[in-house]
Amino acid sequence: MAETAPPDAPSEAPAGDEVGLDPALAARIDDLLAEHDLDGARAAAAGLHYSEMAQLIGLLPPERRAQFVDALRPAFPAEVIPELDEVLRDEVAARLGTSDLARALANLDTDDALYLIDGLEETKRDLVLQAIPKAIRAQIEEGLAFPEGSAGRLMQRDVVAVPAHWDVGTCIDYLRRGQDLPDDFYDIFVVDQRHRAVGWVALDTFVRAPRSRRISEIQETEFEPIPVDMDEEDVARLFKDRDLVSAPVVDAGGRLIGAITVDDVVDVIEFEAEEDMMRLSGVAGSDVHAPVLATARLRSLWLLLNLGTAFVAASVIGLFSASISQVVALAVLMPICASMGGNAGTQALTVAVRALATGQLTMANASRIVLKEGVVGGLNGFLFALLTGLAAWAWFHEAAIGACIGAAMMINLVVAGVSGVVIPVVLDRLGVDPAVSSSVILTTVTDVTGFLSFLGLATMIVL
Amino acid sequence: MAETAPPDAPSEAPAGDEVGLDPALAARIDDLLAEHDLDGARAAAAGLHYSEMAQLIGLLPPERRAQFVDALRPAFPAEVIPELDEVLRDEVAARLGTSDLARALANLDTDDALYLIDGLEETKRDLVLQAIPKAIRAQIEEGLAFPEGSAGRLMQRDVVAVPAHWDVGTCIDYLRRGQDLPDDFYDIFVVDQRHRAVGWVALDTFVRAPRSRRISEIQETEFEPIPVDMDEEDVARLFKDRDLVSAPVVDAGGRLIGAITVDDVVDVIEFEAEEDMMRLSGVAGSDVHAPVLATARLRSLWLLLNLGTAFVAASVIGLFSASISQVVALAVLMPICASMGGNAGTQALTVAVRALATGQLTMANASRIVLKEGVVGGLNGFLFALLTGLAAWAWFHEAAIGACIGAAMMINLVVAGVSGVVIPVVLDRLGVDPAVSSSVILTTVTDVTGFLSFLGLATMIVL
Repeated sequence: MAETAPPDAPSEAPAGDEVGLDPALAARIDDLLAEHDLDGARAAAAGLHYSEMAQLIGLLPPERRAQFVDALRPAFPAEVIPELDEVLRDEVAARLGTSDLARALANLDTDDALYLIDGLEETKRDLVLQAIPKAIRAQIEEGLAFPEGSAGRLMQRDVVAVPAHWDVGTCIDYLRRGQDLPDDFYDIFVVDQRHRAVGWVALDTFVRAPRSRRISEIQETEFEPIPVDMDEEDVARLFKDRDLVSAPVVDAGGRLIGAITVDDVVDVIEFEAEEDMMRLSGVAGSDVHAPVLATARLRSLWLLLNLGTAFVAASVIGLFSASISQVVALAVLMPICASMGGNAGTQALTVAVRALATGQLTMANASRIVLKEGVVGGLNGFLFALLTGLAAWAWFHEAAIGACIGAAMMINLVVAGVSGVVIPVVLDRLGVDPAVSSSVILTTVTDVTGFLSFLGLATMIVL
Repeated sequence: MAETAPPDAPSEAPAGDEVGLDPALAARIDDLLAEHDLDGARAAAAGLHYSEMAQLIGLLPPERRAQFVDALRPAFPAEVIPELDEVLRDEVAARLGTSDLARALANLDTDDALYLIDGLEETKRDLVLQAIPKAIRAQIEEGLAFPEGSAGRLMQRDVVAVPAHWDVGTCIDYLRRGQDLPDDFYDIFVVDQRHRAVGWVALDTFVRAPRSRRISEIQETEFEPIPVDMDEEDVARLFKDRDLVSAPVVDAGGRLIGAITVDDVVDVIEFEAEEDMMRLSGVAGSDVHAPVLATARLRSLWLLLNLGTAFVAASVIGLFSASISQVVALAVLMPICASMGGNAGTQALTVAVRALATGQLTMANASRIVLKEGVVGGLNGFLFALLTGLAAWAWFHEAAIGACIGAAMMINLVVAGVSGVVIPVVLDRLGVDPAVSSSVILTTVTDVTGFLSFLGLATMIVL
């Protein structure tokens, strides 16, 4: 694979199948920074792609990050900034200072500049905006008027728009002359006299058409203009479902006001899939670079909620103190039943949360999926009732205890499976993000069911 | 927003911000199928995009799915098939039967056809391949030779490749004549005499260049040809990091043999982010459509593992039977400590698993992140030690019990934070996917630590 790159192509392809930053290079830059050799560090980082620089910044310890920013200024590569996680972005922006940051911002696409400037504190934001050239500042300020997480925030303002009556030749000449064209574009949008989006032509169709062909003859008119206030999650879903590479963004009157390209959407798609996972574990909005105090505070809310539910579960156990003091085996075995319920419920819940997010689970099939999870819970409940029952019998030499934990296991696994779907579906119907709160409710249900059924049955049967 | 679509653009833009299948239409098609009105169902589904048809198939009950396939045959739209989840894909393929399936396959891009045919059983696969036209069959068979999950499986064989000495005009004429061109392309690849990939020209650059300009003057030579055996996860990362829309795929000699486009990569990116979440919960490879028995069996392995660890935790409790029979409050409180450790550990683990997957956590910064999580655990440990200790004291009117659970909480939250990073990092170093097994190991550690520290301290202090 070493011979892949011909001499005239200084390929950056990493050796083997490894993608991303070379660890040896990262270590070398770290060493250079440690020796305060900023020029050396800059030279070593010169060949890096901006995504690799962003990765490097993430891997460096905080004090080296600041040095690295210093090493690269005043020509700090603007493209690095949008690639950084939120915490690092703020850190780099702060270190750059107003004028260097404004210079970097002015070189970014509107959508990237918006994303970055939106994360700044109000006072800092105003200072930076003042330092940006007027024309670009106006575009950014317009963009800030769109709600966060909307199509308006993702879009690039510069688009290629032509009238349907032009021919391909006129269009090519326009493009060759073109001044206000976007840096990258994949589709030509067709507009009517009122600048409403009425069609589009993919560039690959365009380059294959003869000069005399009219745009109206090659345009596609079945398409989805994206309303500027559409939620970015819906934009992402549309791009994914329709295999789009770019799409026009329109205002309430259907007028073309920008375009969204797939590179911005890819980040949203990854973020949305990842966000569900983070929310299920109670770490939404968290990343590996967040400072210790902020991390501890953010996580403590989730833990507090869990502490509350743990006390609820404990109070259920408390009801059976008398039984436990008589038969201590109950205390030994009771966590097993609760823990299995929690795990089985989380399995059903995880599948349900993703299915809700991707439109695979709706009210249309919810009852069928609930039934299915109930049956799955019953089947596994039977299997684990047997296993656990026999193990408990063998351990404590009492068949009745085995029977009790077996029955409780069966009950808890069915309840877990059903709750794993019902909880997120109900939350979704109530307009609450199911990923955020489902798992706390679920574990409360499975803990209470587990303790109540096992200790309750044991109190009735064993004692 | 109702006026967005001009009269000549029969826009499919859904009302409001809802993306995807209209639930009312889905219900109507369901009703029509229930009445065995296949023609009516076909007519009602006629305007649907293939991604909406795929969504509809997922929402229909199994018996209606078969009817819906029947309604659409013989012209079953091939593009629907790759959009389906694995289980549904197999179901639809089975219902279509060899000849209708072969017809559909022949209409798909190589990469989609490959994906589909790879999921078939061996005997069925051979039958279907026999029924496909020879030229396409040869391409598919070549594709099947590449390892699953490699770039070779994602790539489209047809590419636009031109020599660097051509001028833009020659190139345009070639494209206008073009026969074997791909359906969609975004970049023109530049090859040398030995057909090695040496550069590329984005279509938007190409259309802006005058006819007399040489390709060698407008080509980019800094690029990343993708080795055909590169893992698809690395391909996805490369597309995301470099904001690529398409990229050339080369063999071991650097020769251009295909291209990967972003629409295929988007699915991989979403899948990879989602897969981590599924693995953490022990439901990898599962989807909402999987049949009951398969689901139960798949999930039972994870539950079995958890049952084993639950017995380990129970045996720790068993060590302290004597203490519990004397002070039953210990049994009531002990799950709180274990449960808080499990939750805090899962928070750290979730962040670490994603950070490992995205290159934000490597050996370069692992020790720093471990330290950070330890400190976060200590801070929250202190907070929750206080809260839990006071609550336990108030509940059982014994300060010593409060002190014991507080100290145990502190210990367990620090252990949980550190383990949440150390476990996935060590697994990753050992070449094991950290998402698959981390959470079982983690909860074992936090359960054992929680029970051992609380019951151990109580045995020493309270009794």
